[in-house]
Amino acid sequence: VSLSVFPVAGIGDVHSGDDLAALIVEAIEASDLSIARRDVLVITHKVVSKAEGAVVEGVWTDADYRRLVEREATAVVRRRADLVIAETHHGFVCANAGVDRSNTSPGTAVLLPADPDRSAHRLRQKFEQAFGVDLGVVISDTFGRAWRRGVVDVAIGVSGVEAVVDHRGTTDTYGRVLEATEVALADEIAAAADLVMGKATGIPVAVVRGIKSDGAGGRAADLVRRPEEDLFR
Amino acid sequence: VSLSVFPVAGIGDVHSGDDLAALIVEAIEASDLSIARRDVLVITHKVVSKAEGAVVEGVWTDADYRRLVEREATAVVRRRADLVIAETHHGFVCANAGVDRSNTSPGTAVLLPADPDRSAHRLRQKFEQAFGVDLGVVISDTFGRAWRRGVVDVAIGVSGVEAVVDHRGTTDTYGRVLEATEVALADEIAAAADLVMGKATGIPVAVVRGIKSDGAGGRAADLVRRPEEDLFR
Repeated sequence: VSLSVFPVAGIGDVHSGDDLAALIVEAIEASDLSIARRDVLVITHKVVSKAEGAVVEGVWTDADYRRLVEREATAVVRRRADLVIAETHHGFVCANAGVDRSNTSPGTAVLLPADPDRSAHRLRQKFEQAFGVDLGVVISDTFGRAWRRGVVDVAIGVSGVEAVVDHRGTTDTYGRVLEATEVALADEIAAAADLVMGKATGIPVAVVRGIKSDGAGGRAADLVRRPEEDLFR
Repeated sequence: VSLSVFPVAGIGDVHSGDDLAALIVEAIEASDLSIARRDVLVITHKVVSKAEGAVVEGVWTDADYRRLVEREATAVVRRRADLVIAETHHGFVCANAGVDRSNTSPGTAVLLPADPDRSAHRLRQKFEQAFGVDLGVVISDTFGRAWRRGVVDVAIGVSGVEAVVDHRGTTDTYGRVLEATEVALADEIAAAADLVMGKATGIPVAVVRGIKSDGAGGRAADLVRRPEEDLFR
């Protein structure tokens, strides 16, 4: 019952209109990795956004970039100097409303996918067809956190694996009912995948093997804490 | 260059004064797992706290518990009904100041270790002596997050592996200098380990193999965002 995380190399640059699922399937088939039932394919959102054309041109200056961030933000949670922590239309709270200028052509910026759960679902369907087994898909992005230094990868799109696992009502080893134990499974999967992907390596996909989840109904929208339940916006 | 995470079973209940390192070494030696150079042993803080005697007796009622939480909190960041988000003397911001009533004997509550980085360092020294190779240690706890539902495991004590990896100054695949890229490596390791430990399984230790880190000077204190840099307290 151990867990394995395999990087998938060789996908190369992705452009608007590319069939991302086909590129990933090709890269996996060219590797010595064989996909197994219930494997979870974790994909950095950047290649998803690029394939879907969620890329803005003409973003040359910091002022261009800031205008774009303001456009993508539905609410600004905090602002200090050049840093904007903003809510996106998906409900995610992250730096610069998820608009990113790294690992994209000069003069362009990459947005979040319009509907990352739907993107994950479509990718999963194609992967399941290609590999002939039930799979999970997590689309990841790199978020900062309140109170803690450093960024971590989290799930912004999920299909075929639970996003939040509810342990409430189960008991600990002393028979005590567990409290506060909705586990953000998909976020932990995204974090584990980042350990083999890294930030500057050009590896946008990892395969996580050994997740115990029946996959029923997972979606990253479940990871968004509703504003009325949130003490921090 | 893949990553593996192995659960370590068979440690059983831990009591004040137990030699936790010896219990973990025994459990590993009784398993079919052989420890390799640069493996990272991830240990849930609960067994560390128990071995160190960071357990409070006489916590029978919710009022007892709330009093203890107030005592452990150095500052209350948010409060709503029974939920207290508090800062601890270590600088961590978490629910109930890290005081936990699950997986501990009835009438007791477990505190955070007094100095989790020192605990990690001591455990690492004993593990390195037992296994004869350089190792990393991460002591983990389960924290909620602002804005996102569900809890994830994070690092509260670190030794022998970097806690925060600074990619600033490195370039992306287009030659652009990366921004905002201090990665919370130890938190991602803790999250990956939780994928094999779970909340109700009685598996308090996992071995993470395949982390690229020279380990120099890692400590979880580096994961604490200083209040003057923090927009959320």
